[in-house]
Amino acid sequence: MLRSLVAAAAALLAVSASADEGMWTFDNVPQAAIQKKYHAALDKPWLDKLQRSITRLEGGCTGSFVSPDGLMLTNHHCSMSCLAELSSTTDNYVDNGFNASTRSAEKKCPTQIISVLVEMENVTAKVNGATAGLADAQANQARKQELSKLEAACTETSKKHRSGPLACESVTLYQGGQYYLYKYRRYDDVRMVFAPEHGIAAFGGDPDNFNFPRWSLDFTLMRAYDKGKPARTPNHLTWRVEGPQPGEATFVAGHPGSTSRLLTVEQLRFQRDVSVPSYIIRNTELRGRLIQWSKTGEEPARIASDYLQSVENSLKVYRGFQTALLDDTLFARKTSQERELRERVKADAKLAGTVGNAWTDAANAQDRYRQIYDRYLFLEAGAGFNSKQFGYARQLVRAAAERSKSNEQRLREYADSNLSKVSSGLLASTPLYPDFEQVTLSFSLDKLRETLGPDDAVVRKLLSTESPDSLAAKLVTESKLGDPAVRKALWEGGAAAIASSTDPMIVLARDIDAESRAVRKIYEDEVQAPVAAAQERIAKARFAVLGTNTYPDATFTLRLSDGAVEGWKEKGVQVEPYTKLSRLYERATGKEPFRLPQKWLDARDRLDANTPFCYVTTNDIVGGNSGSPLVDTQGRLVGLAFDGNIHSIAGSFWYDGDMNRSVAVHPAIIISALKDVYGATALADELLGKR
Amino acid sequence: MLRSLVAAAAALLAVSASADEGMWTFDNVPQAAIQKKYHAALDKPWLDKLQRSITRLEGGCTGSFVSPDGLMLTNHHCSMSCLAELSSTTDNYVDNGFNASTRSAEKKCPTQIISVLVEMENVTAKVNGATAGLADAQANQARKQELSKLEAACTETSKKHRSGPLACESVTLYQGGQYYLYKYRRYDDVRMVFAPEHGIAAFGGDPDNFNFPRWSLDFTLMRAYDKGKPARTPNHLTWRVEGPQPGEATFVAGHPGSTSRLLTVEQLRFQRDVSVPSYIIRNTELRGRLIQWSKTGEEPARIASDYLQSVENSLKVYRGFQTALLDDTLFARKTSQERELRERVKADAKLAGTVGNAWTDAANAQDRYRQIYDRYLFLEAGAGFNSKQFGYARQLVRAAAERSKSNEQRLREYADSNLSKVSSGLLASTPLYPDFEQVTLSFSLDKLRETLGPDDAVVRKLLSTESPDSLAAKLVTESKLGDPAVRKALWEGGAAAIASSTDPMIVLARDIDAESRAVRKIYEDEVQAPVAAAQERIAKARFAVLGTNTYPDATFTLRLSDGAVEGWKEKGVQVEPYTKLSRLYERATGKEPFRLPQKWLDARDRLDANTPFCYVTTNDIVGGNSGSPLVDTQGRLVGLAFDGNIHSIAGSFWYDGDMNRSVAVHPAIIISALKDVYGATALADELLGKR
Repeated sequence: MLRSLVAAAAALLAVSASADEGMWTFDNVPQAAIQKKYHAALDKPWLDKLQRSITRLEGGCTGSFVSPDGLMLTNHHCSMSCLAELSSTTDNYVDNGFNASTRSAEKKCPTQIISVLVEMENVTAKVNGATAGLADAQANQARKQELSKLEAACTETSKKHRSGPLACESVTLYQGGQYYLYKYRRYDDVRMVFAPEHGIAAFGGDPDNFNFPRWSLDFTLMRAYDKGKPARTPNHLTWRVEGPQPGEATFVAGHPGSTSRLLTVEQLRFQRDVSVPSYIIRNTELRGRLIQWSKTGEEPARIASDYLQSVENSLKVYRGFQTALLDDTLFARKTSQERELRERVKADAKLAGTVGNAWTDAANAQDRYRQIYDRYLFLEAGAGFNSKQFGYARQLVRAAAERSKSNEQRLREYADSNLSKVSSGLLASTPLYPDFEQVTLSFSLDKLRETLGPDDAVVRKLLSTESPDSLAAKLVTESKLGDPAVRKALWEGGAAAIASSTDPMIVLARDIDAESRAVRKIYEDEVQAPVAAAQERIAKARFAVLGTNTYPDATFTLRLSDGAVEGWKEKGVQVEPYTKLSRLYERATGKEPFRLPQKWLDARDRLDANTPFCYVTTNDIVGGNSGSPLVDTQGRLVGLAFDGNIHSIAGSFWYDGDMNRSVAVHPAIIISALKDVYGATALADELLGKR
Repeated sequence: MLRSLVAAAAALLAVSASADEGMWTFDNVPQAAIQKKYHAALDKPWLDKLQRSITRLEGGCTGSFVSPDGLMLTNHHCSMSCLAELSSTTDNYVDNGFNASTRSAEKKCPTQIISVLVEMENVTAKVNGATAGLADAQANQARKQELSKLEAACTETSKKHRSGPLACESVTLYQGGQYYLYKYRRYDDVRMVFAPEHGIAAFGGDPDNFNFPRWSLDFTLMRAYDKGKPARTPNHLTWRVEGPQPGEATFVAGHPGSTSRLLTVEQLRFQRDVSVPSYIIRNTELRGRLIQWSKTGEEPARIASDYLQSVENSLKVYRGFQTALLDDTLFARKTSQERELRERVKADAKLAGTVGNAWTDAANAQDRYRQIYDRYLFLEAGAGFNSKQFGYARQLVRAAAERSKSNEQRLREYADSNLSKVSSGLLASTPLYPDFEQVTLSFSLDKLRETLGPDDAVVRKLLSTESPDSLAAKLVTESKLGDPAVRKALWEGGAAAIASSTDPMIVLARDIDAESRAVRKIYEDEVQAPVAAAQERIAKARFAVLGTNTYPDATFTLRLSDGAVEGWKEKGVQVEPYTKLSRLYERATGKEPFRLPQKWLDARDRLDANTPFCYVTTNDIVGGNSGSPLVDTQGRLVGLAFDGNIHSIAGSFWYDGDMNRSVAVHPAIIISALKDVYGATALADELLGKR
């Protein structure tokens, strides 16, 4: 599934776009090439209208407005956390689905925020001005301060914006070749309207994930509210229920999360040797623990379900990364591309002066990163403390310290522009499951000790008389941070409240804060800073040598991809681009993850066995594009992206037009399901504009 | 821990020995070089005496006789399976240790067999004669038939041997450069004499495993019996309790399991890209499941303990493999070594004619292996059916079919020379834990489906109406193969009994036998056969170009390694070669795996805090050497090898004298423990020859 992974990586070397390659920013869409290839005129009005219909789900997905009343289409797997947060022992909305019979029955998601991109402002000159002439570590600080300052000023100004106050976020494109302020309209009242059962939404589960042919009804409908009423969204998409023809052009608009196509060879090698194996090993063991724990009862199974699905999805992605990175042919190609660029820079004395030893500097920074990676990962990035309560504690401890500083001096995640997200997450009332907390925390403490070693100072401090199990049990059962009122008091009490707290999670977060910040400082000054400086210079080299007719790596910001409905050849066998409903019933086993919900068994005779179910296209998309609409040349909705085939995972490093495919839900099966399986006729009518 | 892993790999390119590199066969020890470096005269009597004191534990370890009455020293981790098999809910010999106060209290290990190498016979000419002129697949068959024939004839002849009947095993050295018959004296009555508690034997558990400094009392004493009486073993080792001095020469004799130092570059790439990641991912998830299952109670923890420790040990090894294989410098060196050898072959027209396209042939075979690897692994190698009962079923079904064939026509593992091992394993009475079986079988069925895909024919056959959980539950609870009497009846009933059995495990093994054999046939004809043929030719090239003053890759056969007591430099810091008892107490946390047994807490004041505990040497050893004695120039026992440092894992691919270290238990701590902690004075006296 194409939900964006948390772990993002910075990236360097540009790739010349060909075929359907490219995740284009809306201000740099290759209109002429698309006109030529697909006879489609994607002019500014076409793009503007589309842009205003696209939403970003802050958990790492995309959505689109599909009625004038704020109704939003996205993937079921993008709504799993909301469904889980709304569920309880008696109401399991993940397994049983959710169907609001009336608008008043629509339920607010406790933590869901969505954003619509309204404006983009190029601030490259300002950022470059702030860092000019500074050494790497100082420049890195100055850059962050400038970005915090620009965001704060932008937020202030945008309070008078005609769309109401906007949220301003800085965006780094082309690895520092460009800096932008992206301005979003935010909706923090998002309600669950309709979700099918998990059994049909994720039919085939992990075995089918990233595979095709496919039969997953991976959609959910939510509604954005504004001041307690359905939001007005006149720029919504309209439906073309019959979907696209074979070979027809399709355009995907959405928020691809992260790609690494411009990484230097040494940065790729770091991923191959260090970060990717580390991720796989850690999360594969966690997967095993969660699966086994899920078997201890129905309630554990329900509690772990959302998290487990996300772990399994990430693992499939990382295993794909590993396979891609072990392709020596890729490395050879990247190496020769890099050599060529470096030689062209060398041949231009002025450019060579600007670019300097950028590649060597970046490589040295990777070596430094190798030395501190585990400590950074486990202490600062939190891999050693996998617990929702610890997450609260870390944020409360850090926020108390940071809020007492001026905006520009703070750690970036506590800058004013980010603070409302932090506080709304902290103060939201969501369920907390102590038994589950113990499973994940004990696991991560175990890995902390395994990775840093039993004689490491922090490990000794925490585990000199405790085991990971006993410490996790103590922390989880004695902490009161599961109570939103306790968190609220600590948040409002600030530094004094934190200093005097005896809550064991707060104590833990306090106790390891100095060591965590110390390794973060090494990372920022000795890894991030030289990499950022080198990347800015390499970006200049790329623009100088290759021009600006390229696309930047994905950054969870709005992009457009062009493509067409087309199968591919798998080990010599042609894979047809569409699946039909009939085969769904043939593949059902009666057992998870191939168990059909009862409603689908009951509806079988009412449904047209020939209804198209899923299909594939050549669109170049990636995690974060989950929930993106596919539209035709007239901008009508013809599909809902939710996955890629297994070859699409290598798309993080390069696009292979022969093999890389996006997987979409067909609109016909969504409408048929709403009408003929779930009796949600009013909702189907709203989608079809029949009201 | 240096127990041999099951997964062995064939290997190719020779490496020129330097420093303390080399696992030498006893007939090719570099005596002159050792004399020069260590002033030690390892003449034939010295070697012969040592050889007769060394035992091979068929589970993958080494031992040595340490008294004239068959007393054998090995590692605790090598005796875990015996301890687990002897344990019950009331007697937990793994956790609590075992101490036979008298000889009559010594308990027979249900499945332990040990072997002592008596003779080696070179049969290269005979094997080459049998395959001369044949195409690869036919030669592969003919080679196996010839080896089965030679083994059978040897066994027949050796019935008249002065040591009694011998077991004959063929051995392939130098990747087919030499074939040998190794002849062993077997002991199948091996009894548990003394084992310390797991808490001190494996102090530090998985976190400390493959690390140093170290405090693991990893020893066990067992006794070989012959016709119901302690075996007479006059060629036993004597003890030098004070151990070796810093820098002193140490020699390790034992049975290193498998190395891959002579692999071609493409064979290494196969490990890096395919087999090693596959192993890590599969077993890391299994590890997570076993750990979580262990937490459901004391009994599950006890049941899973032995298996979990072995999974964790293998994982540490494979993660080390991965790190080593991702070293591009290694690949570059291997590539240039291979290129050089190929060029020297090319320059010699006659040799070039003999060697042909050996490297290309081997590379093509690896490509074929990539295509069938998963299917071979899951169906034929059994990764899809991780269950003791399935193991019985597979052997019973296969043995029934194979035993009706002539010896030479059988699958090699059912040749006469192997049949007694098969039957004694099948008929031995060992505990079977249905709940544990369900955990491992459900896991492996899940991975079978994940790896081969839900639409694979075998997966459809097994899981079209079942989940991995429901199928595993059905198979495990309904099968009667846990009962040795049922297995005996099926074994003796042969093909007819198998054909009419309705035991669900037998039915399963029968149902998938054709598909399993089919993929094995592809593997043997299209992977193994061309690789074997290519390797024989490359071995000829190596002997021609590099001479015979080299050592073959490890093959779980007797080898000698020379070295010395020496620390190493870890990230710039010198690691001292010895540890002392005092620090053991400082590292104890009171919680697993750093919890000291009560006896050790009680004995603290009686013990000398300066007693040496463990130490490191430069000896070149590998998994299978676990339990090997370290002897001095006079052949006296000065240590017990049980592990290597983390850098030693790369020793599978190459030896690095600066970093690669063996880890041994010091004899002083063993004697002190027996006397002062456990009151096993008689046993200590037997070791010291005071009787």
